[in-house]
Amino acid sequence: MISREQVHTLVTHKAFQRFIIGVIVFNAVTLGFETSPGIVAEYGTVLHFADRTALVIFVVEILLRVYAFGWAFFKDSWNIFDLIIIGIAVVPATGEFSVLRALRILRVLRLISVVPSMRRVVSGLLLAVPGMASIAALLALILYVAGVMATKLFQHLQPEHFADMGTTLFTLFQIMTGEGWPDIARELMAKAPMAWIFFVTYIIVSSFAVLNMFIAVVVNGMDRGMTEELVEAEEKHAAEQKASDELLLSEIRALRAEIAELRAARE
Amino acid sequence: MISREQVHTLVTHKAFQRFIIGVIVFNAVTLGFETSPGIVAEYGTVLHFADRTALVIFVVEILLRVYAFGWAFFKDSWNIFDLIIIGIAVVPATGEFSVLRALRILRVLRLISVVPSMRRVVSGLLLAVPGMASIAALLALILYVAGVMATKLFQHLQPEHFADMGTTLFTLFQIMTGEGWPDIARELMAKAPMAWIFFVTYIIVSSFAVLNMFIAVVVNGMDRGMTEELVEAEEKHAAEQKASDELLLSEIRALRAEIAELRAARE
Amino acid sequence: MISREQVHTLVTHKAFQRFIIGVIVFNAVTLGFETSPGIVAEYGTVLHFADRTALVIFVVEILLRVYAFGWAFFKDSWNIFDLIIIGIAVVPATGEFSVLRALRILRVLRLISVVPSMRRVVSGLLLAVPGMASIAALLALILYVAGVMATKLFQHLQPEHFADMGTTLFTLFQIMTGEGWPDIARELMAKAPMAWIFFVTYIIVSSFAVLNMFIAVVVNGMDRGMTEELVEAEEKHAAEQKASDELLLSEIRALRAEIAELRAARE
Amino acid sequence: MISREQVHTLVTHKAFQRFIIGVIVFNAVTLGFETSPGIVAEYGTVLHFADRTALVIFVVEILLRVYAFGWAFFKDSWNIFDLIIIGIAVVPATGEFSVLRALRILRVLRLISVVPSMRRVVSGLLLAVPGMASIAALLALILYVAGVMATKLFQHLQPEHFADMGTTLFTLFQIMTGEGWPDIARELMAKAPMAWIFFVTYIIVSSFAVLNMFIAVVVNGMDRGMTEELVEAEEKHAAEQKASDELLLSEIRALRAEIAELRAARE
Repeated sequence: MISREQVHTLVTHKAFQRFIIGVIVFNAVTLGFETSPGIVAEYGTVLHFADRTALVIFVVEILLRVYAFGWAFFKDSWNIFDLIIIGIAVVPATGEFSVLRALRILRVLRLISVVPSMRRVVSGLLLAVPGMASIAALLALILYVAGVMATKLFQHLQPEHFADMGTTLFTLFQIMTGEGWPDIARELMAKAPMAWIFFVTYIIVSSFAVLNMFIAVVVNGMDRGMTEELVEAEEKHAAEQKASDELLLSEIRALRAEIAELRAARE
Repeated sequence: MISREQVHTLVTHKAFQRFIIGVIVFNAVTLGFETSPGIVAEYGTVLHFADRTALVIFVVEILLRVYAFGWAFFKDSWNIFDLIIIGIAVVPATGEFSVLRALRILRVLRLISVVPSMRRVVSGLLLAVPGMASIAALLALILYVAGVMATKLFQHLQPEHFADMGTTLFTLFQIMTGEGWPDIARELMAKAPMAWIFFVTYIIVSSFAVLNMFIAVVVNGMDRGMTEELVEAEEKHAAEQKASDELLLSEIRALRAEIAELRAARE
Repeated sequence: MISREQVHTLVTHKAFQRFIIGVIVFNAVTLGFETSPGIVAEYGTVLHFADRTALVIFVVEILLRVYAFGWAFFKDSWNIFDLIIIGIAVVPATGEFSVLRALRILRVLRLISVVPSMRRVVSGLLLAVPGMASIAALLALILYVAGVMATKLFQHLQPEHFADMGTTLFTLFQIMTGEGWPDIARELMAKAPMAWIFFVTYIIVSSFAVLNMFIAVVVNGMDRGMTEELVEAEEKHAAEQKASDELLLSEIRALRAEIAELRAARE
Repeated sequence: MISREQVHTLVTHKAFQRFIIGVIVFNAVTLGFETSPGIVAEYGTVLHFADRTALVIFVVEILLRVYAFGWAFFKDSWNIFDLIIIGIAVVPATGEFSVLRALRILRVLRLISVVPSMRRVVSGLLLAVPGMASIAALLALILYVAGVMATKLFQHLQPEHFADMGTTLFTLFQIMTGEGWPDIARELMAKAPMAWIFFVTYIIVSSFAVLNMFIAVVVNGMDRGMTEELVEAEEKHAAEQKASDELLLSEIRALRAEIAELRAARE
């Protein structure tokens, strides 16, 4: 039987990882072709077979990795990410779950976990998330409060946008992206002339909150890019300074030693 | 009778604050349910009772806090914030004031003043406001000037957007959010071909002003996040330098002492 | 006759400047009222008289300032700004120039030159302009090239948006603000399927250029806000360092002096 | 025959470069006039002749530069840029290639390579590109995955926006610019109520990615503008420090020399 070490050597081998990247790209292309009814009509069987093959390779790869790493496998969140993506593909996509057929393309996102440079970029982006959490919570609170208020106020005046909490929250998200809000507002203001107060307040408050979420991301991006350079310049300077000070110190100590000798000779 | 100290101990107790947070969240949920006519039809009485109870708890809590803190209560702006929000809920929401029913959800904003981390975030955001004030005043001036000008120029050409100052200011706010302005402009330009001058100028000037308001916020956000780190590096370096200089100084002073001894011995 | 010094004392007096600010605000209000046909019908004569009076005060003030400062008056660009704004108001607003009636509100912009804090903000904003000039030139070049190209390509396909250079440039400005471009693009693509290449390229290139213009402004804003703080920390540190070094130097020199004395005594 | 040196002197001469800039600007104007059917009808021959003349001058200029610089010419990417732009103009713009007539205006972009300040700005902007590459790759991956998914899911529900990969990618680009997405989403949601999940997720993820691409550009812009200033302050300080340390060192060495003399005299 094959030992754990051998499997470990295999799954961490460069050639093996390149092969997996190749399969992902190939699978991405076949899934892309599947969106064209014309191509499916002619080559449907081939595409389906290619897709099945890719899936089998992915499942085997993940099982090998689980075998190679043991419990440690489940401690890396990228592995959990791979596992979920492959899991979606394994569920039979029939009946109620036919929407899962469209989710199969998510497999291509495995490129992120497999290609190291992609992984670094996404890890870098995710670093900004904790800094955004508290403002995101505030934004959620604003959305909920604005949602209840708008539903109560405009429910009967404009049911297509404010019928219930779900509809209102979608409308508020739409207004937050700044899209098509004047049409909604002007229609409402024909019936409730003071509705502008709600819209203007909501737009100012929500864009201020979103702006601050962006700033959290920017500050994070800055920290990585720029501060490093400055701190480096500072540290280089500090090191030079230290060397210069040590030279001074050694000179002075030499001087003391000489004076001590002078004294000793005198006594 | 209960003493001030006892009440003070009560209202600043962790468990009491957690209870209040619980009541706010619970009230937020019941107010959310009230937006659904179906749920109101079935459980209206229960929801109404829950809402009344929450309101009574809030009123009692605020009275206790006023009693506990005395005049100091009114010096904290967060307390004033709480007071206004509860005040809105106490006004009977009938007749002319029926819009106040929808404002009851504002109570949920008390979460901001009660949860310390939320309070910090909002305080942080408000720190940026003074820096924005002078540019906000400039923006208000621009809006007023553009409002009078557009009303005078386009009043008779496109009354649905520029009939009077109020309508024009709303239209200008809409243009500032960049939404739907080409429709308004093209319709006007069919009648007044030079109208594009007003729109292009207004869009450039107002986005420049808004951009600078954003910068005031960003610079504020930066100051908190980034400068700290750099100033820290700088200060650490300065401290090291000082220690190094003090060592040099003590060595030189020791040297002087020795020479002084040498001289004394000689004389 | 009144001497130059007396006039100079008058026009630079705090009370006089406050009076002028008062007249500007009062005039802003009367010009605001003039936008309402109802108010004009009733109080038209009063408003007109107030406006005339304000204008006379402004003209007299500017003449006094010219007399007080002499040629130096024309060296301050804020004075030129005041002069142009008052000049617009003096031109009789009849016949062809009736549009000038609407420009009278521009007088309110004199608040910027009269209120010192406003003046500082606008001066600050204008500091960013030179840094934007070269990218603005690039943007103008892109607009011209895209304008000629789009006119040539789409002139006959969609004359309402691309009939001639003027129309095309307005359409390109509209696309740059990101407003309503899909409608224009989809209509064109029905006739010229490759038109998407032009739109996607133009949107990416122009938003990249606009973004970089924004960055020029942000970097300027940053420089003012943040670098100062860091450079200050740096300079405080440098000053401390210098003091510390001078102490060392004086100690060493004192040492040398003592040794010199020792030698002198020996010889 | 004319020597390489003479041609080199000619093409790098200020007057020659100014002449070329003049021809480019003149050609830009004639190409601008060509967009007006009225002007073409009257002055078509003159404009055509001017355009031909400008093209001949450009071709001659580039041949001279190739002759003057030899192979080194092809190593500068700005020269390749010029070569492609002139190349487009030389291809006969008839039949299938009639679209090339509209691309002739691209010649005006040569201003960027000829005017040094323009060249610097564009070079500066392009410096930001490598920093954007990895996030651009991520964005491309997101677009592809979202494209396949949306095509599969919405192909039959809304063929005008999601018929095939090409149409879907254009629609996704449109949604990324935030334009008109609610119309598309609301129409879809009438048939597939859960479609909002796709839109909200896609908008949040893609704007997060685009925001991070912007940050890469901003950080780059910052690095150039601001860090320089700080690093300069730092370096000036370091130089001062070094001078001060050298003074100390020379004093101490002088002291040692004196003590050494003292000792020598003693022995």
